[in-house]
This record gives sequence, structure tokens and C-alpha cells, in this order.
Amino acid sequence: MIPRYSRPEMVAIWAPETRFRIWFEIEAHATTALADLGVVPQEAARTIWEKGSAATFDVERIDEIERTTKHDVIAFLTHLSEIVGPDARFVHQGMTSSDVLDTTLSVQLARAADLLLADIDALLAALERRAFEHRDTITIGRSHGIHAEPTTFGVKLAEAHAEFARNRARLVAARAEIATCAISGAIGTFANIDPKVEEYVAEKMGLSIEPVSTQVIPRDRHAMFFATLGVIASSIERVAVEIRHLQRTEVLEAEEYFSPGQKGSSAMPHKRNPVLTENLTGLARLVRGMVTPALENVALWHERDISHSSVERMIGPDATVTLDFALARLTGVIDRLVVYPENMRRNLDLLGGLHNSQRVLLALTQAGLSREASYAAVQRNAMKVWEMRGDRTGQFAQNLKSDPEVMAALTPEAIDAMFDDAYHLKHVGTIFSRVFGRSA
Amino acid sequence: MIPRYSRPEMVAIWAPETRFRIWFEIEAHATTALADLGVVPQEAARTIWEKGSAATFDVERIDEIERTTKHDVIAFLTHLSEIVGPDARFVHQGMTSSDVLDTTLSVQLARAADLLLADIDALLAALERRAFEHRDTITIGRSHGIHAEPTTFGVKLAEAHAEFARNRARLVAARAEIATCAISGAIGTFANIDPKVEEYVAEKMGLSIEPVSTQVIPRDRHAMFFATLGVIASSIERVAVEIRHLQRTEVLEAEEYFSPGQKGSSAMPHKRNPVLTENLTGLARLVRGMVTPALENVALWHERDISHSSVERMIGPDATVTLDFALARLTGVIDRLVVYPENMRRNLDLLGGLHNSQRVLLALTQAGLSREASYAAVQRNAMKVWEMRGDRTGQFAQNLKSDPEVMAALTPEAIDAMFDDAYHLKHVGTIFSRVFGRSA
Amino acid sequence: MIPRYSRPEMVAIWAPETRFRIWFEIEAHATTALADLGVVPQEAARTIWEKGSAATFDVERIDEIERTTKHDVIAFLTHLSEIVGPDARFVHQGMTSSDVLDTTLSVQLARAADLLLADIDALLAALERRAFEHRDTITIGRSHGIHAEPTTFGVKLAEAHAEFARNRARLVAARAEIATCAISGAIGTFANIDPKVEEYVAEKMGLSIEPVSTQVIPRDRHAMFFATLGVIASSIERVAVEIRHLQRTEVLEAEEYFSPGQKGSSAMPHKRNPVLTENLTGLARLVRGMVTPALENVALWHERDISHSSVERMIGPDATVTLDFALARLTGVIDRLVVYPENMRRNLDLLGGLHNSQRVLLALTQAGLSREASYAAVQRNAMKVWEMRGDRTGQFAQNLKSDPEVMAALTPEAIDAMFDDAYHLKHVGTIFSRVFGRSA
Amino acid sequence: MIPRYSRPEMVAIWAPETRFRIWFEIEAHATTALADLGVVPQEAARTIWEKGSAATFDVERIDEIERTTKHDVIAFLTHLSEIVGPDARFVHQGMTSSDVLDTTLSVQLARAADLLLADIDALLAALERRAFEHRDTITIGRSHGIHAEPTTFGVKLAEAHAEFARNRARLVAARAEIATCAISGAIGTFANIDPKVEEYVAEKMGLSIEPVSTQVIPRDRHAMFFATLGVIASSIERVAVEIRHLQRTEVLEAEEYFSPGQKGSSAMPHKRNPVLTENLTGLARLVRGMVTPALENVALWHERDISHSSVERMIGPDATVTLDFALARLTGVIDRLVVYPENMRRNLDLLGGLHNSQRVLLALTQAGLSREASYAAVQRNAMKVWEMRGDRTGQFAQNLKSDPEVMAALTPEAIDAMFDDAYHLKHVGTIFSRVFGRSA
Repeated sequence: MIPRYSRPEMVAIWAPETRFRIWFEIEAHATTALADLGVVPQEAARTIWEKGSAATFDVERIDEIERTTKHDVIAFLTHLSEIVGPDARFVHQGMTSSDVLDTTLSVQLARAADLLLADIDALLAALERRAFEHRDTITIGRSHGIHAEPTTFGVKLAEAHAEFARNRARLVAARAEIATCAISGAIGTFANIDPKVEEYVAEKMGLSIEPVSTQVIPRDRHAMFFATLGVIASSIERVAVEIRHLQRTEVLEAEEYFSPGQKGSSAMPHKRNPVLTENLTGLARLVRGMVTPALENVALWHERDISHSSVERMIGPDATVTLDFALARLTGVIDRLVVYPENMRRNLDLLGGLHNSQRVLLALTQAGLSREASYAAVQRNAMKVWEMRGDRTGQFAQNLKSDPEVMAALTPEAIDAMFDDAYHLKHVGTIFSRVFGRSA
Repeated sequence: MIPRYSRPEMVAIWAPETRFRIWFEIEAHATTALADLGVVPQEAARTIWEKGSAATFDVERIDEIERTTKHDVIAFLTHLSEIVGPDARFVHQGMTSSDVLDTTLSVQLARAADLLLADIDALLAALERRAFEHRDTITIGRSHGIHAEPTTFGVKLAEAHAEFARNRARLVAARAEIATCAISGAIGTFANIDPKVEEYVAEKMGLSIEPVSTQVIPRDRHAMFFATLGVIASSIERVAVEIRHLQRTEVLEAEEYFSPGQKGSSAMPHKRNPVLTENLTGLARLVRGMVTPALENVALWHERDISHSSVERMIGPDATVTLDFALARLTGVIDRLVVYPENMRRNLDLLGGLHNSQRVLLALTQAGLSREASYAAVQRNAMKVWEMRGDRTGQFAQNLKSDPEVMAALTPEAIDAMFDDAYHLKHVGTIFSRVFGRSA
Repeated sequence: MIPRYSRPEMVAIWAPETRFRIWFEIEAHATTALADLGVVPQEAARTIWEKGSAATFDVERIDEIERTTKHDVIAFLTHLSEIVGPDARFVHQGMTSSDVLDTTLSVQLARAADLLLADIDALLAALERRAFEHRDTITIGRSHGIHAEPTTFGVKLAEAHAEFARNRARLVAARAEIATCAISGAIGTFANIDPKVEEYVAEKMGLSIEPVSTQVIPRDRHAMFFATLGVIASSIERVAVEIRHLQRTEVLEAEEYFSPGQKGSSAMPHKRNPVLTENLTGLARLVRGMVTPALENVALWHERDISHSSVERMIGPDATVTLDFALARLTGVIDRLVVYPENMRRNLDLLGGLHNSQRVLLALTQAGLSREASYAAVQRNAMKVWEMRGDRTGQFAQNLKSDPEVMAALTPEAIDAMFDDAYHLKHVGTIFSRVFGRSA
Repeated sequence: MIPRYSRPEMVAIWAPETRFRIWFEIEAHATTALADLGVVPQEAARTIWEKGSAATFDVERIDEIERTTKHDVIAFLTHLSEIVGPDARFVHQGMTSSDVLDTTLSVQLARAADLLLADIDALLAALERRAFEHRDTITIGRSHGIHAEPTTFGVKLAEAHAEFARNRARLVAARAEIATCAISGAIGTFANIDPKVEEYVAEKMGLSIEPVSTQVIPRDRHAMFFATLGVIASSIERVAVEIRHLQRTEVLEAEEYFSPGQKGSSAMPHKRNPVLTENLTGLARLVRGMVTPALENVALWHERDISHSSVERMIGPDATVTLDFALARLTGVIDRLVVYPENMRRNLDLLGGLHNSQRVLLALTQAGLSREASYAAVQRNAMKVWEMRGDRTGQFAQNLKSDPEVMAALTPEAIDAMFDDAYHLKHVGTIFSRVFGRSA
């Protein structure tokens, strides 16, 4: 987590103050539940809530205590007893540190997921707006980086929308995976704490209960969560790479917004570089790199070992903060993307109509030629255009009309009719309906 | 995919014969749909179905053609035209290779997922059976590899059951992710093929339609699929590591079945090694290693590049075949696991009752001591036992009874009452009910 | 390892026949050394060599025995005794299976490294040839995908050459890492076998001795080896991505060789796609994905566990076979790459001379303007050209000459002189000398 | 990078103040070289050195400027001109930002490598000291977690020493990989800056020149660097896992130092957990997770894109700081490790002498039995001991003496002679000589 790639709301989730506040809430809720069960005095439970709620936890003091005890939860409890007084001995009854730590991590990850879901919603809104704006902006589709057939810029954005709608659903599922509460005591047997306490705390913290915990909440849940973040990051990379391609000098069909005063290069004042999307590409690598450590965290020893902890201290904040930043940055890029329909048109025409080669192929087979002969006829006429330099306008049609085998099957008028771009876009409305539930 | 770690049913899904058969079915269904739309003759569609269904596709012949065309789908179509005759020119009308290839991959991955789901079901059954068998088999729970408090061997297995039940649900979701059909033509615009064809083929092949494809089915779907396999593999590793620990010479609470005639070591005839679970640990690494390549496949260029293809040719079979083998092997290990309750008991008693330290701590705080004073009192008496060598039976209770601070708060009878193991197991039924929906 | 991406020589290294032959050689050399030490009869050692050398090991028979013993080395030794007769009891004296298995893996990886080194040498030769061919072929350099300043196509290839020369050195180091021999018996203490046997076998097999083994050769060696393969794969990806970019329709500065009869797309006969370099991009992902499993193999338990074995059974062949194929494919691509200098020139001129913006900036600062004022002056004149559409020839120079602030500092002649391309290439010879040791 | 796992000296390398100081030094050295070449006035170069050296760079001011320019190097140069005055216009002449940024990263990584090398030296010293201390401390060697044959605790540490000596050599090589200097201007052609400047700066900064750069230093170098850190992290994990195993309750052959006042568990006062080595296991996962992002950074587009930058801003500090901390922590663990030779002895005897099974096997084959018959005889007698419960002292010898087939080949005295532990340790001196160059 570095300031340059961080936003304050997500950072705040991971601040020590937030963590201690959640710790307190869990401990206090548990004490209330214990009071309801008659295990600790009601009066003590109330005192703990009142004094703890009013207090500000002193992060430096807790750190100081930890330097002796070498145990963070014990340090916190000691500090809490400084605040609460003698009733503090009723706190943490029958619980183990992991009850607090793991449930806290659940709360933090769930909150982080909520921010990320809001980020995705903003991105979806931007994608939808720009998609409809460019629903009919014709552009060449490219497979293998090579001109193929036309599509529209809106369809490109619709694909991104569909992909992030999937990511949204995945994140909702991943949030459910980690939003569980374990208050089951050492080894998870509830030996010293009634399962009702877990139920009570879970409800109060907005979590579901962990059906069976082994002191810790099982780490397959977290692995799934971070794997999902890795998929989302990869989708960000896909859109980023698309924009980087579109901004290439020779292509220049779209461009990141370049603000007044911005400098593209310290040496070359003429440059306008797609630095935001390049940055997103790098951030995607970072988030993706956190998936494997999370997977390696699953196989803890016996009822638990603590090797997962250092991993989560780093990737918990880093993955969520970085992804939050990346989603917001991508939304900004999409929102302000400068689109050049005239360049799209110019590029589309670059190959002199070759993007209609399939239509000719189909017409020839319909006219009775074998698939192989049709393919050969189209390919030989196409390759002549491909290898031309300079202005190729109308060349493909002209070549076809000079080819005796083609002309034996098709009329010149039929050939001309094949160079109508509307043909390619007739189902754009269908696609939009599928993605957005409306075509206009 | 290597024979040693493969099972035939999963291997068959990835055989060239299977692939070509699925290719044929997709092409033939599409031709039927085109015939219904009046694009190609009904008669031709029927001929294609009949001749293709009756034929055996000649893998070597297809390979031979591919050596010239350098294009696998074209090679197949050429071979198909050898089988079908002139009507073959109506096949693949308006389609692009990816329509066939990607939809085929969907079918293969969906079938693979079905086998994996069956594998998980078998594993769940084995875990459930053994869990109830050992519901009350007491054993020490260990955190950090160190004795903590008692649990039962059944609870350990219940945890594994809950984890694989989650994995089952994840895999169902992952299957839905990749079970989509795209018949949308070059660049995915349906320019040369009606969306109704896609709907028809999807239904026939048991898939849902891909709302928007860009020649290819978007690879975030596959990334999510393989990431899920990586999580499942990590869960396998967790159970495998547990068993490896239990079989250690000093622990020996459980042991992989060792068959007559089996040899543990070429040099040391006395050995019985947990080689199956060690193997599972390695297989988990392999499956996990395929997650990142799948994530890197997401960011294809523009409407598609083909860099994903070589990755999927390897990890498609390798991840599913390896995971299928691993799940089946784990099921076998669980089914035949030799459990030693008497060793569990002996190990449990090793620390002379220290596993009750928390009960004493709680009793002291209940009796009015501060949390800190209680902790110190228990810790000093516990450490004396910890540092003993030899037989520690009853030592912890005895030490407590000799400690004036403790005795000021508790009676000897109260202390003795804290060394009753049933106390730790009173909620095992609750846990079983949560996991299995029944406690016995 | 799949046939499509495999070459026979590397595949042969991993064949069962090769493995059993190496096993035999190690066992037979060890027996000879034991005979020299007087531990076993010389006559027996000779018999073993003679009968074993003459025999063909029966892979199916060994597999059959393994199905009972569940131990591959024991199965092999049993088969060897079928061949050699009673003297076979002197084989494997004091050794453990890992002595054979690990030393064999060393031999296989060392042989694989030798093939890979030869592959790199071929690639370096191709890069050098094409680099000198295009030493002076001017082309625009691009940072962020945006035109920057000119370079030559030869310099691009020189960079690739320097990178693969580094990879060669890394692979030599990695080969030395894994070319070690361990014949140290169970637990590596030489309890039952004299260290002289290890020295003898090492020398005969072309390996160095493992200073301290713990039954196994330590896996940090293998981790380093596979990590090095991952770096090489990433370099392959870099060159592949470069070529994919150069072949883009709008750029088309270079193109993979497209053979007669080749078909680019089943649907669009006009296409020529960079499928080889796209394939290399995918293969790079695969090899890279094997790095982490190799790293996870390092932390074996105590003196060894066998979890590394399944990993190596897969990634040993897969990583080396795939990388061998990829290097050879890349060499072929470079060798036959079709280069279009005229397109490079046309693209270079696209921005109307903006690639000289830095020269103007420097001239203005030399003429006394502040860095900030110079930058602003150049940027405002450059951006006007950037935002133009259509033919920009000479536009940048013209704009500069119309800018009063610029003209107060520079003469029109000085400006014209800044649009001389040779200026950019004057140190190409220096770069070539650094990389190739010769500039022509 | 989080405070809990950071040490100040390594953190300081990555502080903004350090970075700006290195930027200044590179710029100032380059200006001096340009002055020597007559490109800028000597007087200006001197002024820049003097004023810059005396100044403290204002991190907040630079950040403020960057918010407008959106370019960090330009922001720094602007701030520098505020300090230096008009002569600042001679700074950065003919250079590009990457010249400064990449060379700075080289300096930082080289300094980080120096700290890591010192860390490894300290670790090697600790391992050597403890290895000789326990050269003859007998302990059971374990393969597959199962007792095998004896070794000494010193040999275990010698293996770790040999492994970290290899890691040291790897890190020296990795340091050389990244210790290069590029001052080659935009696109790396030296168009606007003489190669002599690069040579001058390289020498002054303690780097070698980059033979051919393409605006950036090629990222295969950094990939190799971070891959090497990943290998070292994996070795740390190996030692950490060993200690965690040795501290298990049932084993307890060694234990992390447990300080007075330390608390093992908030709930269970009796616990002493191997938390440092568990932590190291997690830290290893983190460092390893940074390898793949570094590998993905290699394939930058054309002469450069900036996607690598965000990755390096995070993994540069995180990988080096975390590894530095981990190495130091491991050194502390080794230094203060509490070793229990008496427990090692007790565990060694647990299986009633079975660790000599290989000796018996060898003696039987020497006595003329076939390998298969010998194996069967030893195995059947060993398994009876294996399956015993309770005290097994002397049982294996006794069983052998009761076996007629064994007694037909061996005398009771010969059998007794096989239970002498010194036999297993006779080559420990040889191993120590190999590893440390001395056996005592």
C-alpha cells in the first residue's frame, strides 16, 4: 500500500484505530451475550460498553505493551482494562485471540468489498454511458492485431460492461465467503463459550456464523476472496490494454484525457502517453501476485498455525487498496476518454474493403463453388490488396471484378452490394439488449 | 497430464476424438439452425448429420491436412467435406473458428466440472462416514503444532467436510461461468450469422448463450474457473498436510493404508511413509501453478489474440486431470485411513493436563482475580510441567494445589473437576448439526 | 508436454527408456566403485555392467512390478535382477532410491540445459545476422506506444541479442546449480556407503558432488533452475510482443513469414496473423507458471518428503520441452521475419517531424531560455501538429518558424538543420560494438 | 512494507529523501561530464554540485509540483531549479527521465543487495557456530516425517549453511545483474548525449554501463533479481519449517527462545508456540509472490512502456525490506535456538532400533541372501516392532534373533554389533569439511 496508489476511504478500513474499534465491538458484544447467558454480570457488560465506546484507544500505548507481551490481542486487552477498570476481567471470557482477529478481518474485508462493489458500480455506469454514446460509432474489429470485420466502439464498451457485471457478481459471492464470524474459543470446540455468543456477535456485526472453525476461520474462504480480486484485476488489465492499443500513434482511435499543464516526457515535449492505463496494467500485476500467497495460506497445520497472519497483514490492505484505486482510475479514464470516430473511420478504410472478405466467401459458396475454391479465390484477390502500398480505396472490389472465376459466379452489382457497412452492424441492438436490457 | 496421475474418464474428455466429435456436433447443429432459417438447404443439413454421425473422424488425416493449412479448424472442415461430400460447403456458414473452438472448450470444461463434482461428492461421503465413526474419538487439538485443548477426530473431518462442501458450491458456480456458447461469427457481431443459431446450438449443447462475445468467449470466465480449481487444490493440500502430520513417527495418530507387498523404502525395510498425501501436496502445487497463466490469459488484444490457446491446450487437460486424480486419491486415503484412538489418547495425556489451563484461568478470573494475575498464576504452574521430562501425569493439578495464590481462590475439589475431558466435547453435537444437518 | 509444442530431442531426454538407462549407469558405476573399495566382488560388478549394457529395459515389465511394490526404484532393481541374475544383489548396496532418482534428474536437467543452450546459440546467431542486415534501417522508437525518436531496426535486434546473451549466461549458471551427484545413502550420512563412491559416480556422469545432501539433493538448486527458465521465457515474450506490435495492420513494419497454402482465418480469407508470436506469448505464460511450484518445492520436511516428486515429474519435462520449442520457434520467426523498411519510413514521417522535439528543446535552452519556457514553447508548437489530421509533412518546422518566442532564439536555418535523421543514428556503431564486439 | 516487518536501514534506502539525493547525484555527475565534453559551462556544473549538495530537497514541495506536471522527474527538476537558479537549465541536457529513474533503481537495489548480503553473512555465522556446537549431537533423520536413520543436529545446520552459501553466491550474481547505469537518452540512441556521460556516471555511482538500453534498463535484469530473492525466501521457509517441526509437542527437540513476560496464547497460558518461524513461513510466501509480477514486467512494449513502474514502486521496497527482516529474524532464531539433545536421544530410541534396518538388510545380502529375501526378512521383523505399543527397547534385535531365516545367515553377536550408533556418524567430519572447509 503506497500513498500514490491509495484512496483514503479504503485506507481507513485498515488503520489501527479502525482495527481496535472493531476489536472492541466484538469483545463488547460477546460480553453482552455472556451477560445474557448469566456468565458475567450485566452491570459489567454495560460498563464495558460505556467506557469503551467513549474512549479513544491509544495505538502507541498498545504497541508499547505488545513489546513486552509479544501478543497483540493481550496488549489490547491490557489497554482496555486500563480504560474500563476491574470489570475488564469479564472481557474475552472463554474466547481466544483468533475469535477477535479473524472476525475483525471478516469485518474489514466485507467493508472493503462494499467499497469495491461501489467502485464497480461507478465503472459500470461510466461504461454504460459511453457505450450508448458510441453505440453506432463504427470501428474495425481486430483479431491478432489485424483488421478483421467492423464493429462499433459501443460494442467494445458493452463487452467491458458485461465483464464487469460478471465481476460484480463474483465479488458479491466472494464477500459472502469471508463475511463469517467465529467465536468458538481455543480449537473451536466452544468448550468455554456458548455457541449462542457467536450467534449474537455475528448478528450484531452483520456476519453469518462459521459452521465449524478450528480456532481460525478456514482460509479457503480468504483464498477464494483474493482469487476473485485477481480475476477483477485481470479484467482491468484487459480494458487498459485495449486503450493503450487505441492510443498508439498509428492507430489513435482514442486517447486518455491529457490535462493542461501535463507533461508527457521530460525530454520530448511532443508526447501524450497513455500513462494511466499503463499504470493500471502494472497494478493488475500486483493484485494478481497476491493470489498465490493467499492460496498457500490454506494449508495451515492442524487446528491452525499463524503463518497466514503476516501474509494477510500485507495483502489484506494492499490488494483491496490497490484494486480500489485501480477501479476508480479506470472509471476516470473511461469517463473522460477522448474518442476519435474520424480516425476509426480512416483506419477502417485502410485495407481497401478487405474487411468484407468473408461476405464474398459466403456469396461464392452460396453460388455453388466449393468452400475450398471460394476461399482460394477470395484469398488471392485479397492478398494483392494486402501487399499494396498507398491508397487502396475500392481495390478489393475492383480485383474481384477482374477475376474470371469470381465473375462466373457473381455480378458486379452483387459485389458492390457487399461493401455496405450497415450489414455488419445490424445486430448491435440485439447485443445491447442482451447486455443492458435495452438497445437504446 | 501424465499417466501416473490420470484417470481414464477425465482423459477421454480431452482426447482428439472427443474434440472432433464435439466440433462436428456444433457445426451440424448450427447447420440445422441455418436450414431452419432458410439459409442452407434442409436436405444438406440432414446429409451432414447423417454422414457425420456415422463417420469416425481420422485424427491422423486431420493432422496431415493441418500441416499444409496450418489451421486446425480448416483442416477438420476439409476432412469433413471428404466424408460428407459437396453438401459440406454449407457447413460453418458465417461462423468463425473460435465459434467452434470456444464452444467446444466450454463443453469440455463443463463435462470436466461434472466429473470433479462427482469426485467431490464421493469425498464428502467418505468424510461424512469417517466423521461420524470418530465423532467422539477424543484427540488433542493443536495450534502452532503445540498441544492446545481437546477436540475429536470427527470434528477434524467435519471441518474438512464443510470446506469441501464450500468447494462444491464454488465449482458449481465456476461451471456456470464457463458453460456458455458463442456462435457470433468473426468479431462477434453476428454479421454473417443470425443470433438464433447461437441460441439453438446453446440449447442443444446444454450451454447458455454468451451475451456479448468478441470472436472469443471472454477469458475472465476461464480465469475464474481455473482460480476455483486452485482453491480446491489448496484444500486438498490442507487435508493432506494434516494426515502427514498425524502419521509422523512421534505422533502416529493415523496412517495411510499400507498394502501387503508395499515397500516404503528401497534401503530401509522398516518404513511406512505417507506417500499418498505427500503426493497430493505436490499435485496441489501443480494445479495452483496453473492459476496465474489463466489470469494472464484475460487481457487478450482487441477482439482477440490467440495467446490463450497454447495455455489452455496445456492447463485445460492438466488442471482437470490432475485435480480429478487428486480428489479420487484423497477419497481413497480418507476411506481407508487407519486411525489409532489409543495413540490419540496417549498423546493427549502427554502434557499432564495442561490442556485445561484455560479452564483454570477462567475459574480464577471468575473467583475475582484480575485477568493479568490469573494468567500469571496459571502460566507459572503450567511452565513447570512443560519443562518436566518423563511422566507428567496429574502434575498440573498437583502444582496448582501447591500454589497459595491459586488455593486462595479455588478449592482442591474445584481444581480436580477441571480435568474432566467431557467438558471440552459438549458442543460436538452442535458442530455436527451445523455441518451435516444431524448430530448422530 | 503436448506433441504440438514439443521437439523430439528434448522429449527423448524424458522418455522412460532414457531414465532407466541413466538409472542403470548410476547403479553400475556405483557397483564398480564399491568393487574397487572391496565391498562387492569385482566379478559381480563386471557382470552387472555387461548384462545391463546389453539389455533393453522393459518399461511395461517394470510398471507391472511397480503395481505390487508401489515403489519405482525397487521395481527397476527387481527387473534388473531378472536380467543380471544373482549378482544383482550387489547392486544398490548402501544406497537409497533418492541417490538414483536425484542424480538421474540432475543428468536429465543438465542434458536439457545443453539443448537449451544450443537453442539460445541458434537464436543469438539469427539475431546477430538480422541485426547487422538492418543496422541502418531507420525506424521510429516508441515509448508508451507513442512515437518518440528514431532508432534502427538493427538496434532493436541488438537489444534482443544482449538480452539473450544474458539469458545464456544465466542458464550456464543454472546448469551448474543442478549438475550435482548425491550418492550418500539414507539421510545423506554415508553410513552404508563410502563418500568415494559418490566421487566416482559424479565424475563418470559429468557432475559435481553434492557437498551435503539429506537423502535428497536440496531443492533450492532446482528452484533456481526453473526460475531461470521463467526469466528466459519472459524474454521470449518480450520479443514476441514486439513482433506482434510491428505486424499490426496500421503499423506493418514487419511480419511473420506466411507460407503458401497457409490460411489466416477460416472465415476471413484476407488475414495474415502473427500466430507464431502470439503462440510464444502463451508458451511464456506456461513456463512462467512453473516457477512458483518449483519454489514451493524447496521447503521439504526434515531430511526429505516426496512432495517435490510429482511436481518435477510434470514441470521437468514440461518446462524444458516447452522452452526448447519456444526458443526454436522464435529463432525461426527471426530468421524468416519479413521486414518492411519503407513502412518504417512512412510511419516515422507520420507526425510531421515531431520526433525532433527534444533537439529543439535543447537548442532553445542552449540559446538561453529557461528549461520551463523552452518546454512550453516546444510543447505548444508540437501539440498543434499532434492534433492535425491528414498530411503533416514539415508541419512542426513550419510552426516553430511562425512562433515569435522561438524565432527570437533560433534562426530558420538552425531549425531546418534539426530535421536531419542521421543525427539520431550517429552512435549506432557504438551500440553494436558494445553488443557484438564489432560495429560492422 | 509494514513497520512490524521492517528494519530501518533497509527502509531508509527507499525513503523519498534518499531517492531525491540519488537523482541529484546522477544529474550532477552527468552535468559534470557534459561540462568536461564542453556541452555545458564548467561553472554551471560546479554551481549545481555546490548548491544541490548543500540543499535539503523538499519532498512536499516536489509532490506539490507533481500534482500539476503529473511527472515526477520534471517536478524534481523544477524544484532543483528553485534551489540552483538559472544554471539549472544545464541539468538533464539530452537525458530522459528513465536515465535518472532506472539508474536510481539500480543504485537502490544494489544497496539493498549489500544489506541482504550482510544479513546472509550473519546468518551463515550463526549457522556455523551452532553447527559445530552440535556437530555430534545425535538425532534421528526423518524422511516423509518417519524415522529413518540417525544423523546429527550439526549436519542439519550444515545443510542450511551450504544452502545459504549458495544463496549468497546467487545474490552476488543478482546484484551484478541490476547494478548497471543507463544514460542514453530517449530511446537509448545517445542522440542527444554522448556515451561518455554514461561511462562517467556509471563509474561515479559504482555501476557498470548498460550495453544497450531502450530508454529503460531491460527488465530481464530485475526479473532475475527478484526471482533470486524468491529462491532465498524459499530457503528461509525450509529452515523455518524444520524448526516448527522440531518444536511440536510430541517431538520437542528444539524450541524458539521464549522470553520472560512473553505470552503464547491469550486463552491458554500453558503455550509456547514457534511464532517466529511460523511468521517466517508467511513472509516467504510474500516475497515469493513478488516473483511473478517481476517476470511479467519483462515484456514491455517497444522501447518501453511504464507498466513496470507501479510494480517496482511496491515490490522494490516490499521484497527487500521483507527479506531483510526475515533474514535477520532467522539469524536471531538460530542464534538463540534452545536445543534439547536428551529429547533427540529419546525420540531416536522410540522405535526400538528400527533405524538400523538397512544395516541388517545389507548384512543379509552380504551373507548370500537375495535382495528380495533379505528385504522380506527385515521387513517382517521390523513391522512387528512398528506395530507394538509401549516400550520397544531392544525389540528389533530380539525379533531378528528369533527369526530362523535370519539366524541361518547371521550370528547373534553380528546382530548386536549392528546397533552401534557411531556407525552412522563416521562421515560427519567429511561432511563438515566439505561445507565449512574444516571438520572441527
